[in-house]
Amino acid sequence: MKKESCGLFGIYGHKDAARMTYFGLYALQHRGQESAGIVTFDGQKTFEHKGMGLVPDVFQENDLKKLLGHIAIGHVRYSTTGASQLRNAQPFLVHFKDLQIAIGHNGNLINTWELRQELENEGIIFQTTMDSEVIVHLLAKYLNGNSLENALAKALNKIKGAYSLLLLVNNKLIALRDPFGFRPLSIGKMGSSYVFASETCAFDLLEAEYIRCIRPGEMIVIENDRMSSFQFAEPEKPAPCVFELIYFARPDSIIFDKPVYLARKKMGEILAQESPIEADFVMPFPDSGVYAAIGYAQESKLPFEMAMIRNHYVGRTFIQPSQDMRDFGVRVKLNPVASMIKNKKIIIVEDSIVRGTTIRTRVKKLRELGAREIHMRVSCPPIRYPCFFGIDFSSKGELIASSQRIDEIARFIGLDSLHYLTIEGLKKSIEWQDNFCMACFNEEYPLKPGQKCGKFCIEW
Amino acid sequence: MKKESCGLFGIYGHKDAARMTYFGLYALQHRGQESAGIVTFDGQKTFEHKGMGLVPDVFQENDLKKLLGHIAIGHVRYSTTGASQLRNAQPFLVHFKDLQIAIGHNGNLINTWELRQELENEGIIFQTTMDSEVIVHLLAKYLNGNSLENALAKALNKIKGAYSLLLLVNNKLIALRDPFGFRPLSIGKMGSSYVFASETCAFDLLEAEYIRCIRPGEMIVIENDRMSSFQFAEPEKPAPCVFELIYFARPDSIIFDKPVYLARKKMGEILAQESPIEADFVMPFPDSGVYAAIGYAQESKLPFEMAMIRNHYVGRTFIQPSQDMRDFGVRVKLNPVASMIKNKKIIIVEDSIVRGTTIRTRVKKLRELGAREIHMRVSCPPIRYPCFFGIDFSSKGELIASSQRIDEIARFIGLDSLHYLTIEGLKKSIEWQDNFCMACFNEEYPLKPGQKCGKFCIEW
Amino acid sequence: MKKESCGLFGIYGHKDAARMTYFGLYALQHRGQESAGIVTFDGQKTFEHKGMGLVPDVFQENDLKKLLGHIAIGHVRYSTTGASQLRNAQPFLVHFKDLQIAIGHNGNLINTWELRQELENEGIIFQTTMDSEVIVHLLAKYLNGNSLENALAKALNKIKGAYSLLLLVNNKLIALRDPFGFRPLSIGKMGSSYVFASETCAFDLLEAEYIRCIRPGEMIVIENDRMSSFQFAEPEKPAPCVFELIYFARPDSIIFDKPVYLARKKMGEILAQESPIEADFVMPFPDSGVYAAIGYAQESKLPFEMAMIRNHYVGRTFIQPSQDMRDFGVRVKLNPVASMIKNKKIIIVEDSIVRGTTIRTRVKKLRELGAREIHMRVSCPPIRYPCFFGIDFSSKGELIASSQRIDEIARFIGLDSLHYLTIEGLKKSIEWQDNFCMACFNEEYPLKPGQKCGKFCIEW
Amino acid sequence: MKKESCGLFGIYGHKDAARMTYFGLYALQHRGQESAGIVTFDGQKTFEHKGMGLVPDVFQENDLKKLLGHIAIGHVRYSTTGASQLRNAQPFLVHFKDLQIAIGHNGNLINTWELRQELENEGIIFQTTMDSEVIVHLLAKYLNGNSLENALAKALNKIKGAYSLLLLVNNKLIALRDPFGFRPLSIGKMGSSYVFASETCAFDLLEAEYIRCIRPGEMIVIENDRMSSFQFAEPEKPAPCVFELIYFARPDSIIFDKPVYLARKKMGEILAQESPIEADFVMPFPDSGVYAAIGYAQESKLPFEMAMIRNHYVGRTFIQPSQDMRDFGVRVKLNPVASMIKNKKIIIVEDSIVRGTTIRTRVKKLRELGAREIHMRVSCPPIRYPCFFGIDFSSKGELIASSQRIDEIARFIGLDSLHYLTIEGLKKSIEWQDNFCMACFNEEYPLKPGQKCGKFCIEW
Repeated sequence: MKKESCGLFGIYGHKDAARMTYFGLYALQHRGQESAGIVTFDGQKTFEHKGMGLVPDVFQENDLKKLLGHIAIGHVRYSTTGASQLRNAQPFLVHFKDLQIAIGHNGNLINTWELRQELENEGIIFQTTMDSEVIVHLLAKYLNGNSLENALAKALNKIKGAYSLLLLVNNKLIALRDPFGFRPLSIGKMGSSYVFASETCAFDLLEAEYIRCIRPGEMIVIENDRMSSFQFAEPEKPAPCVFELIYFARPDSIIFDKPVYLARKKMGEILAQESPIEADFVMPFPDSGVYAAIGYAQESKLPFEMAMIRNHYVGRTFIQPSQDMRDFGVRVKLNPVASMIKNKKIIIVEDSIVRGTTIRTRVKKLRELGAREIHMRVSCPPIRYPCFFGIDFSSKGELIASSQRIDEIARFIGLDSLHYLTIEGLKKSIEWQDNFCMACFNEEYPLKPGQKCGKFCIEW
Repeated sequence: MKKESCGLFGIYGHKDAARMTYFGLYALQHRGQESAGIVTFDGQKTFEHKGMGLVPDVFQENDLKKLLGHIAIGHVRYSTTGASQLRNAQPFLVHFKDLQIAIGHNGNLINTWELRQELENEGIIFQTTMDSEVIVHLLAKYLNGNSLENALAKALNKIKGAYSLLLLVNNKLIALRDPFGFRPLSIGKMGSSYVFASETCAFDLLEAEYIRCIRPGEMIVIENDRMSSFQFAEPEKPAPCVFELIYFARPDSIIFDKPVYLARKKMGEILAQESPIEADFVMPFPDSGVYAAIGYAQESKLPFEMAMIRNHYVGRTFIQPSQDMRDFGVRVKLNPVASMIKNKKIIIVEDSIVRGTTIRTRVKKLRELGAREIHMRVSCPPIRYPCFFGIDFSSKGELIASSQRIDEIARFIGLDSLHYLTIEGLKKSIEWQDNFCMACFNEEYPLKPGQKCGKFCIEW
Repeated sequence: MKKESCGLFGIYGHKDAARMTYFGLYALQHRGQESAGIVTFDGQKTFEHKGMGLVPDVFQENDLKKLLGHIAIGHVRYSTTGASQLRNAQPFLVHFKDLQIAIGHNGNLINTWELRQELENEGIIFQTTMDSEVIVHLLAKYLNGNSLENALAKALNKIKGAYSLLLLVNNKLIALRDPFGFRPLSIGKMGSSYVFASETCAFDLLEAEYIRCIRPGEMIVIENDRMSSFQFAEPEKPAPCVFELIYFARPDSIIFDKPVYLARKKMGEILAQESPIEADFVMPFPDSGVYAAIGYAQESKLPFEMAMIRNHYVGRTFIQPSQDMRDFGVRVKLNPVASMIKNKKIIIVEDSIVRGTTIRTRVKKLRELGAREIHMRVSCPPIRYPCFFGIDFSSKGELIASSQRIDEIARFIGLDSLHYLTIEGLKKSIEWQDNFCMACFNEEYPLKPGQKCGKFCIEW
Repeated sequence: MKKESCGLFGIYGHKDAARMTYFGLYALQHRGQESAGIVTFDGQKTFEHKGMGLVPDVFQENDLKKLLGHIAIGHVRYSTTGASQLRNAQPFLVHFKDLQIAIGHNGNLINTWELRQELENEGIIFQTTMDSEVIVHLLAKYLNGNSLENALAKALNKIKGAYSLLLLVNNKLIALRDPFGFRPLSIGKMGSSYVFASETCAFDLLEAEYIRCIRPGEMIVIENDRMSSFQFAEPEKPAPCVFELIYFARPDSIIFDKPVYLARKKMGEILAQESPIEADFVMPFPDSGVYAAIGYAQESKLPFEMAMIRNHYVGRTFIQPSQDMRDFGVRVKLNPVASMIKNKKIIIVEDSIVRGTTIRTRVKKLRELGAREIHMRVSCPPIRYPCFFGIDFSSKGELIASSQRIDEIARFIGLDSLHYLTIEGLKKSIEWQDNFCMACFNEEYPLKPGQKCGKFCIEW
């Protein structure tokens, strides 16, 4: 299965649409560091620039200058495998009759394999392994005699899975979310321009005003400076991804109409209620876990400390250490403050444990520095099941909780105690919403994954 | 009209197929400097690397190492417009059912527009502006129930124009030339490997043995280490491009089964017979014209001099000169040897005149240096008509001979006399072959260009 | 005046000395981002590599491989002016008779101008504007008939100011601090190797053991695997730079034999005692101020929040925003969490205010988001006087506190109240040490700056 | 011994002095491909930019824009060893009192070692291995109480060897040649500006007018827009380097007041008189040998052919060929025209044989292609002795003629006959000049090389 965690940004009606999109993507960089792309339309022609790497590496002033026009969509993509290629960078742009169709996708389809089979039997060739290409072929198929919106609705009714989409088709900008609303996509206003973004931190950077989240199954169309909305499919029981709130989104963002910071802090608070313990202080491993740790500390009335320091220059590639420099990759990122650790009883609050190996290395270091007791509290339930809707746990290796009991995990990491937030606790933390997709915790998949999904990646 | 002068190289049955292809393309660099690409097949998977720029810039050791397999095809493309993009680099690779289809094309089709219309009406979307994409869609269409070879033959019978093709389809390597044989493509042998190249200079570099030129309408298929050949279309009256011999191919190559050096020298000799004149010496403007000038000098028994020196470091981009440094671009490339010019009566032999402006600048300089008389002899007839089959005269601007008489051209350039080789003289120089396409001289196009051909480029 | 805040690392007796130095510099990157360099000695020859930029950009695997030997010193330099050049990168290496003398300097001399005058009158030419070059010329002058150590001691007795030095002279490694001990430099042990670093975070990364800080006026010499120490000058009344503790050093480092994290937290605690106020919560502007804010929050028993989010991808150059995107540079780095701010009474703890403009921009934003009251507490006294010993306040523009009263600063920034830590409070926070240089707060300069110092930069 | 073949360009009184120097260096690129540099003076300050690589790689538009001023000197340096470093790039710039002294040097000193010893004993440190640094230290030493010109003259009277120099000292531009006139340096005029260049091809590119060569021992000083000249040393018996004419200079240049093209052609003519032979044709191995081959062909009335083709894209780095691709480096540069070679009796004219291995490889290839007889004629005498004055034969390996007889060389290369131009023939070819340095042929060194010269390179 191909996983894609991505970020989307779009703008309609701005004289410098490409530049605004550049900054929108810049703010969404944490959602995808593999590739970035922007497509614009100037009333006549479509312009495109894509590249591998971070937004500031992909676009130079000169590239932006060539992206003419007042409408733009942009995309950042997350690297999940070594097979990443420019060919799979988005937005995906094709030519069909008199239409230039550009599409940016966040999410993951689960019936790609079946749809590709079907289309190839009709003589369609594929140039990429992206879900976007399947969507576009379906769209082309249904365009015959239908309006663009109707053809798109028909195409979307064929696909299953998670998709927040931005399309730029000549002078139309279209934004939509799948009927389950797996992935976020919000509407904003920036002067007289309309803006769209996966997270509102992109609006903040542009000083755009946040309006609302697009509804599950809703399609927004902007054309001739007017915005219209219609329901292209009946909304299903909503299933927004809870992991966006727990880990993936930026803490200063609003997604699914709710502030991420508060959700994380609340998780920490409930966690403190569920599994309290006496200690000298509470600390996170930065930056994940900081907000839940603050919540935990406040609820438990224990001091909060930042006793593990993150090196801000890390992220750049560096030269290989010697063979005898073990755990170097972890050490270079996070260094504990020795004077804080010695003889202390410590609670570490983490936002999640995937494979557990990095955490283990740091806990071992804390022991070497003389920590008396080390307790860990995790602000989500154990991650036991794969995600088919766009979060790539597998990129971090196997899920430790899928095969080991909590006490085994505690022993593996070297903890005096380990507690996870319960599913009930998690629900309580995010009480404002009726329902979330929590399949990675409870195996209740809103949609049954299709054939070859989760087994084979369509790769060539 | 989109023009593409390109170079092709392919190899079957070599453990280091990608590296051999790299060097093959290196030798063919003069046929295309815009982009380069290689596709390989290792028995299981297809690998691809393409990029903008010269061969040594596009491929690093690391890239080659990832191009696994014993079969490879490669392509270099010539920059004709500013709209050049990676998207249009070749070989063009698509996925269709269980096939990986890679195609490299040298030439230009003349019914692209009609075919794209037809295919789009069937719901096909286009991702590039390349002729290759049209060919592949046709191939996919006919593959239903047909063998690859038959489907390809059917597809080729739909297309019109100039095409030498290399295809790599899973474990098959296919090489073919259109029924007119517009563009060259030769077969060679390198140990137990088969090799294919647009020009034999690529074989020389690899110390491969030249076998023969592929025949017009012939398709060569290599599979399971065995080569087979069949005629996919009846050969037309042969129409190899005479301009390849005059200018485009490397002088050390054999194309259309004949040595380029000898052809050019013979043109110079006939030119000397047709338009002799007394002079102190004969000189070329390097490097074009060198071989015809040698022929002219020998036939006329006049001394041959290299009185214009080419700067070998030019080719690299340099900084803009000041506004008052006129004709700098020409001056930096070619510098006359002042001491040879003063008071001399000079014959300059050129291989062709397209726009005439560069020549004019250099002739003016020779006057300033005190040349007494300057006569020019051109080793081909006046170029008066556009080429629809792959030579891009338009990239050099308007054809001066299409609108001006020879005496007007002589005056424009500033010559004491100007003579072109006659069409009869040209035919005599290349007497070994029954027929050539000479449409750029005589407007006798072997195929009538289609709609929108030569008018609009399919561009987006 | 030329200012240089820099980082030093040295190692003696390691088979992979250059690689260890690379990682040492990597950990010290926050002390200098302009240039980096390493010099090694392999028993016979000296090797050098320097470049502009960050450590991972300056050194590639290939560069490290050429830096042979078991002794190495390295240097990172802080960019203070646009005039930064490779010429001024360190270590500075010269050849004198049979000696290869490499020197790395952290600090700033105050009698450079006088010494250069004197040396030029003796016919000495200067190739750089670095203090290091002055030191080396003096050393060469005194080497005549003296041992290296004695000559160096004589040279050091001529120079005045702040200097922590590492020298590599053929097979000797020398480390020393000026008699006032302005800048830090520590000794560590890593297996059988000796290591030296400006801050102990470099030891942590290499898992080296921290021994102690070099004493003011002490020279450490390592030769033939043996370390010796002597006092090259009588120690003055100690004057370590208090600003290293307040702001410059990494929180996980130990400098001047004391942990930075605890010092900063203590400053926050004393600050809370000196100027308490009721509020909804305490927050820092990350990352400066985090540790003092934690101290303040704990002492005042108010909640600690991270309500301003730092974008971790910033640091990379990005494209210019539009003219109407005001304060963009600040906004892109720090984004407030809107949901935390509205109607709140907030205490912001900062570690220092230099110019005040960035803070003002962020405070304004908090007001726009509906903060009810905004109070600021600063964990050091007002910075009123320039530093001549290596901290470059001027690079951040004028010192606001040198010309404005605290109430004026509060009004400029837009605060409801503003309090600074008192000098007494600061002394209390760092009670372990008799004395610090606090000239930037109280104008009590340990050394009187020389002619042209603080007025003109030696620049050419 | 350190060898430096370099190119110099200078200009006085041009508003765009750096740009003109850039183009001057561009034209002199063949004299040095290792590094390039420009220093300018704008009436107040000195600006400098240097880098490793070719001129267009070292300088970008942005760099040129920072090189303000109306006076400039530039330098290109030839790579002779792997020890090449930016540190040794020129012009060499130092600061001494109120002077900015920049110096560019073409040639090689023979008493460097002695002078360095002497200077180090006076306490002088060296930062580079360049002769230029020695000259500048001497200059600084004598500046005390002397005018710049007198101090420079005194310094020059201390140094021995080959030196053409350009100096830029604040607002003065100085150009000079050593008393033997080993290396060229010419004066030109470009509008109201004065220009200086190693070869006149730089003047041609800028359309500057050639005035004359600077005389041995002459110093030209330009200041306040006025040029003055004086003899800083009595001229010795002139000893310009004959190898500049034979090989090193561009054929379109004038050096030592004489045209290079005509000299080379004349060498070929005398060679034909000295060692005639019947053959089908005469050919060079391009590009060296072309002009002598033309002379030989004309004198012997044999046809001239370019039967070996040079690949113009070579020069760029390419990927390593396989182990079994022997002689690839030669093959990729030069490819014979097979159709011209078979059954032919060929005379190859070369300008020189240094090591002979490349030639051998190509001759072997001609045999494989069926050449009947291969005779070689070399347009200079056998090179038997090293050069101490700036030509680096050693970079091409050992001199074959220093250890082998001509018949042995012929056998090694695989020739049917081999003849060199005699020393008398060479003198006859360049009859216009009384005397040349021909030490590489006849061991008559104009100056006796100093201690450690030709044995040890000053390297660190």
